[in-house]
Amino acid sequence: MSFRAPVPEYEFLLNNIVGYEQVTESERFAEATSEMVSAILIEAGKLCDEVMAPLQRGGDLEPARLENGVLRTSPGFADGWKAIAEGGWIGMSAPEEHGGMALPMTLTTAVNEMMSGACLSLQLAPLMSQGQIEALVHHASDALKDLYLPKLISGEWAGTMNLTEAQAGSDVGALSSKAEANGDGTYAISGQKIFISWGDNDFCSNVCHLVLARLPDGAPGTKGISLFLVPKYLPNESGEAGEANSLSVVSLEHKMGLHGSPTCVMQYDQATGWLVGDEHGGLAAMFTMMNNARLGVGGQGIGAGEGAYQQAMSYALERKQGRSESGTIVDHADVRRMLMTMKADLFAARAILMSCAVAIDMQAATGDAEWATRAAFLTPISKAFGTDTGISVADTGVQVHGGMGYIEETGAAQFFRDARVTAIYEGTNGIQAMDLVARKMLDGGDMANRLIDEIEEQAERARVTHPNMAESVWQACESLREATEWLVVQDRMNDRFAGAVPYLRAFARVLGGHFHLAAAMADLGGPREKLARFYITRLLPEHAALLAHAQAGADGAFALTLEELAG
Amino acid sequence: MSFRAPVPEYEFLLNNIVGYEQVTESERFAEATSEMVSAILIEAGKLCDEVMAPLQRGGDLEPARLENGVLRTSPGFADGWKAIAEGGWIGMSAPEEHGGMALPMTLTTAVNEMMSGACLSLQLAPLMSQGQIEALVHHASDALKDLYLPKLISGEWAGTMNLTEAQAGSDVGALSSKAEANGDGTYAISGQKIFISWGDNDFCSNVCHLVLARLPDGAPGTKGISLFLVPKYLPNESGEAGEANSLSVVSLEHKMGLHGSPTCVMQYDQATGWLVGDEHGGLAAMFTMMNNARLGVGGQGIGAGEGAYQQAMSYALERKQGRSESGTIVDHADVRRMLMTMKADLFAARAILMSCAVAIDMQAATGDAEWATRAAFLTPISKAFGTDTGISVADTGVQVHGGMGYIEETGAAQFFRDARVTAIYEGTNGIQAMDLVARKMLDGGDMANRLIDEIEEQAERARVTHPNMAESVWQACESLREATEWLVVQDRMNDRFAGAVPYLRAFARVLGGHFHLAAAMADLGGPREKLARFYITRLLPEHAALLAHAQAGADGAFALTLEELAG
Repeated sequence: MSFRAPVPEYEFLLNNIVGYEQVTESERFAEATSEMVSAILIEAGKLCDEVMAPLQRGGDLEPARLENGVLRTSPGFADGWKAIAEGGWIGMSAPEEHGGMALPMTLTTAVNEMMSGACLSLQLAPLMSQGQIEALVHHASDALKDLYLPKLISGEWAGTMNLTEAQAGSDVGALSSKAEANGDGTYAISGQKIFISWGDNDFCSNVCHLVLARLPDGAPGTKGISLFLVPKYLPNESGEAGEANSLSVVSLEHKMGLHGSPTCVMQYDQATGWLVGDEHGGLAAMFTMMNNARLGVGGQGIGAGEGAYQQAMSYALERKQGRSESGTIVDHADVRRMLMTMKADLFAARAILMSCAVAIDMQAATGDAEWATRAAFLTPISKAFGTDTGISVADTGVQVHGGMGYIEETGAAQFFRDARVTAIYEGTNGIQAMDLVARKMLDGGDMANRLIDEIEEQAERARVTHPNMAESVWQACESLREATEWLVVQDRMNDRFAGAVPYLRAFARVLGGHFHLAAAMADLGGPREKLARFYITRLLPEHAALLAHAQAGADGAFALTLEELAG
Repeated sequence: MSFRAPVPEYEFLLNNIVGYEQVTESERFAEATSEMVSAILIEAGKLCDEVMAPLQRGGDLEPARLENGVLRTSPGFADGWKAIAEGGWIGMSAPEEHGGMALPMTLTTAVNEMMSGACLSLQLAPLMSQGQIEALVHHASDALKDLYLPKLISGEWAGTMNLTEAQAGSDVGALSSKAEANGDGTYAISGQKIFISWGDNDFCSNVCHLVLARLPDGAPGTKGISLFLVPKYLPNESGEAGEANSLSVVSLEHKMGLHGSPTCVMQYDQATGWLVGDEHGGLAAMFTMMNNARLGVGGQGIGAGEGAYQQAMSYALERKQGRSESGTIVDHADVRRMLMTMKADLFAARAILMSCAVAIDMQAATGDAEWATRAAFLTPISKAFGTDTGISVADTGVQVHGGMGYIEETGAAQFFRDARVTAIYEGTNGIQAMDLVARKMLDGGDMANRLIDEIEEQAERARVTHPNMAESVWQACESLREATEWLVVQDRMNDRFAGAVPYLRAFARVLGGHFHLAAAMADLGGPREKLARFYITRLLPEHAALLAHAQAGADGAFALTLEELAG
């Protein structure tokens, strides 16, 4: 089977569902019209289908490897990177003054998702560069920007993020990497970082690491960490990669999937670095990178799910079995149930992702704090639901294949193994949910309630054409409102945290109903209305159980002693 | 971490929850008292903890392989098999006259599950032999029994099942393997079979294949297939393995997991075989094997889940992160939610499995058709919910580990990869669900309703001590009754099939509530009551969404044209 980037799906979402017209009506993004967007998506789709998708299997079979300290990437990945870079896809949303295209993040997010469906391992490389570009644009000095941004945007150099240490995973503030001022404006960085995605490659002339470390006078915890740019090769006077810096890739991890992406243990021994942002101000810069990356990872999940869906659909159309009309398994009711569930969930997750991206663009275009708040609220939902959906779709894809799904040659299992990491990295989905019910509800639930109002307003309008579906969405939304009211008055944070994951998923389920309802209204009597009916009748009801769980509190979760829990 | 077989869990289930006392009160199983059962479980537990668990990782890292047609098993597996065989564990429930111990299937099922938690790849080997023993006991001639059973039971020889062909997976009747009478009472078997678990090994002096094939006068479809015993080496006059038969292992599959278990493509070229059962009566014998194996596979799922749970618990107790009381992640509310969910679901799945095994034993002990009907009804639920639970528990286990869960060295990913096959083989879980709503409801839902009555009766009794939990279970059961009534009047089978998987899961959810409620009553104020409250408050509510899906019918699932579905 061959991958086809879901361009029409994106066109429908942007033109009908997620309010993209607001973006193109803004002064900042006035050039990114619907027509231009289509042209760009089609061009990106060609890259996905023709260049990236053929690299997917080889990345799994011949993982990146370390030979005497030199990193060798999977077959064809160097050419793949070159094609991505030359197409200008790395710097799509980067400033024009540094060589970017200043296009909306909505478009970058769509293209990134399509690339993820084609070859997730390779797509992670430009995603890492994009996070670095974003952090430098917002926090670096002009000198650093002028030196690094053009090369990162052109893809001549690549970027990485170095946050995690062995003892400091979700708790980033526990890091022990050290930085000391050299007296010449540079810093000496020392420490070991783990889980560094694309920590090195053999297709860029430099690899630039953004490294979190603590200065001697840095306070303990997250408040005392600073961010440094630490390149593999120190730029020489003409700004090209020069002398080697004192850093190295110690080893690569053996992972369940994503074999084409080298996950590195990085060692820094008094490596030379440059401060990005203020001293002890690393956290703000880190969040810039992370929010960008979280949206991107949500798209990775959806992309992998899209690839898995296409593969399953193709198998179901070909696999002869039983005595159905077509003679193939696509006519089996249980297979149809699986395929419809996959398709309906992908639509919901993608619409949520896109509506978050639109909010990010509107924030950039208008500077309006409401858009920023909205984007911040939707980011953890986009990340967690996007990745959970991608994983469950890939898992169902394995099941559609029956026994062949468990055999690696079909590729169904690879989609699942690759996608599985997306629920873990860039903040586990548990961390996303805790972020949602704590930090993103510091406003007492105001943002949540404004979204809930919006969903109910549309449901009221939809009663004319789709009374039953509208009522289901409206009722679900009322339950979500009640649960939200319960959550925000819980002062003991563990009472929120114990139900955070089910709450986030319920919110996503209701948002999914909202966007499906919009699709039904936009496609009266058409396939999107039918898909919406499937979702609202069969998948949306899950919200009720999730909300019961969300409001059950911490006591019951902590009811067993550790001995009883282990026994 | 080291595996500890969950012996106390089984003791509690057998002594308090699943009615095992009826088994031991029967004449046939009078010797299998509670004390004897404990002694046997403890002995099996030692084998699991000390012999089998240490083989788990090596089976993954050094898969079985084919060298010039000779199968080489993973390191230590030969010794593992020897220990299993010498302990008498293969023939636990086999007749004493052939060297078995004639113990209840309940006990065999418990031991098999514990072994699965220790090393799933290896445990599959004796499970396959057990299926063959069961089929021969019920369907083979005395001569075949006398020759083969003692050697299969002692583990000197091993057994396999050969059902699947490339074009005949779930649709077994489409097979094309041929059998022709040789005129001397033997048959010549020809054809290729795929997905043959443990199709060969290097630790038994013979491997005996039960092969489905069609005689020249066999009707098309399942009615015309016959079952043959086809040994790797033909027994000589003294009944030992003699001349090689004309069969071979063509290749091994590359699988997502279960690497220690060789999955073979088998080729038969006029191989000599012996008829088992009647000509064209292969289906009956096949169902004997399959029902046994389905229960066993349900236990495999749960076992893998148990292993994953122990590993996750152990990691959560050790992994330092954040500023909680213990300093480890086990104090995080979201981690507790995950661990409690894993534990509560494992209890539910295991109780269902055990209650099915009790019904099988009671059928054997009493000959009562009601027990047979009950076992037949509970088998697909035990298989599908046991394996779905094992997989979801293993998946959650990966998540508890965070980034380390994606790194193969921790073993968390292996539990998941290994367990994943259990939802596929021995009839996919979709096939199990279709079996439940079609064949197992040919009685118009009578068996389902008798179980529902039983659940409600217990809930009524439980109102005294646990009014809220009892009411929740009772209400859930009423919803299940309504859905069952809806299902059985659907004449268009696709209306049942489109909701079969959610229906089966809802039934399991309610049964889980039933057994948790029993546990709460048996452990007033204790940890099992607290776990029951967690399950009934937070997990049982899922049944409502599942039942909505179950009753939604086929039209909505088939609403899209194939072009629309693919587009």
